[in-house]
Amino acid sequence: MQLGRVVGTLVASRKEPRMEGMKFLVVRVIDTDDTETGGYVIAVDVVGAGVGEVILYASGSSARQTEMTRDRPCDAVIMAIVDTWEVDGEEQFRK
Amino acid sequence: MQLGRVVGTLVASRKEPRMEGMKFLVVRVIDTDDTETGGYVIAVDVVGAGVGEVILYASGSSARQTEMTRDRPCDAVIMAIVDTWEVDGEEQFRK
Amino acid sequence: MQLGRVVGTLVASRKEPRMEGMKFLVVRVIDTDDTETGGYVIAVDVVGAGVGEVILYASGSSARQTEMTRDRPCDAVIMAIVDTWEVDGEEQFRK
Amino acid sequence: MQLGRVVGTLVASRKEPRMEGMKFLVVRVIDTDDTETGGYVIAVDVVGAGVGEVILYASGSSARQTEMTRDRPCDAVIMAIVDTWEVDGEEQFRK
Amino acid sequence: MQLGRVVGTLVASRKEPRMEGMKFLVVRVIDTDDTETGGYVIAVDVVGAGVGEVILYASGSSARQTEMTRDRPCDAVIMAIVDTWEVDGEEQFRK
Repeated sequence: MQLGRVVGTLVASRKEPRMEGMKFLVVRVIDTDDTETGGYVIAVDVVGAGVGEVILYASGSSARQTEMTRDRPCDAVIMAIVDTWEVDGEEQFRK
Repeated sequence: MQLGRVVGTLVASRKEPRMEGMKFLVVRVIDTDDTETGGYVIAVDVVGAGVGEVILYASGSSARQTEMTRDRPCDAVIMAIVDTWEVDGEEQFRK
Repeated sequence: MQLGRVVGTLVASRKEPRMEGMKFLVVRVIDTDDTETGGYVIAVDVVGAGVGEVILYASGSSARQTEMTRDRPCDAVIMAIVDTWEVDGEEQFRK
Repeated sequence: MQLGRVVGTLVASRKEPRMEGMKFLVVRVIDTDDTETGGYVIAVDVVGAGVGEVILYASGSSARQTEMTRDRPCDAVIMAIVDTWEVDGEEQFRK
Repeated sequence: MQLGRVVGTLVASRKEPRMEGMKFLVVRVIDTDDTETGGYVIAVDVVGAGVGEVILYASGSSARQTEMTRDRPCDAVIMAIVDTWEVDGEEQFRK
């Protein structure tokens, strides 16, 4: 999984029927020191994440291992909202 | 998923039989500020996207989770046409 | 899918039994303006591509969705020979 | 697989139900000379790895081929703790 | 598939039970001109490759399409030992 910060939302009214009802969030990828890496992903949210929150997302076929995304053309899913992490004994982020 | 802009079409008359009838589009990958990242993908379209439109595409095995692409040697599918997205409360793109 | 130009062939006499009889081609990845990106892939050919031809290849599990590659340890397959593509209304390549 | 050093732990109380009980570790990717590459991954641990240990992790669908991660939205798993490796006959790391 | 040169071996005594008995090799990725790209992979060997040999490896779920690696948390497998390849009619490598 990679860390990301939810920075916005995306609307797509014309989409593959299996994607109906999905919430797309704009996620900037962040590093383990809580700085942006320069990458991003548009991910489907299944945990109720909101703009500003730091999340974990899973990519590829693993993004389809949730009730909402199973068998859908979805390759990135937000599967956890991060409370805190530490590196070398120092807290890097707290919600 | 990643964001892309459809910039053209591709024709391949000799192809794996399972790919017959597929529409290949040339897609330049774009970032969340609507600038090109430098990457591209040739994607199969299943939503009727046209040249100039901004789309979402899914990669890998997720690209095969549509009626048209199931069990085909296809690793990128356009599964949504983007209407709008915002970052930090500011609209970045509107169709 | 990505675009590539077939630049050569590869011989590997000792290989996993499921790979017997496969034709390995050396492919340089090309961009949408028909210049090399710097990347390459060794791909299995299932469409009769020859050296010098511009092709499309699929990666990952999608590379196994052909009769020849199914259930084989193969992660890249040439699934189409490109005739032509255009970007912004201008032809970039013609076979 | 890639090599990594476990540098910390991550807590996420709100997560996809299938991820309950999983231990998330912060892993910095290392090269074959035991220096950091600049990349990282948040991986699920199934072998009892601790902070400071050098490990192997598997990505993608392969990360779900363990009893704990099967059918879960998990795309990275620590599946081995490294004792030692050598390059060109010289030991690069010993636990 | 990508090309690599086997440069060493790796020992991991504590590992996921499904990985017991696997031989891990340290592989430096090489380009089509037989120079190193800077990347590496730790791959499971199923063809009896030795240190110094140039090999092909498959990644992702394709790495599990061998008798030894099926259903295991393994994302890279050496599936062929390379004899020779040529680019633009010139031999780049011969075993």
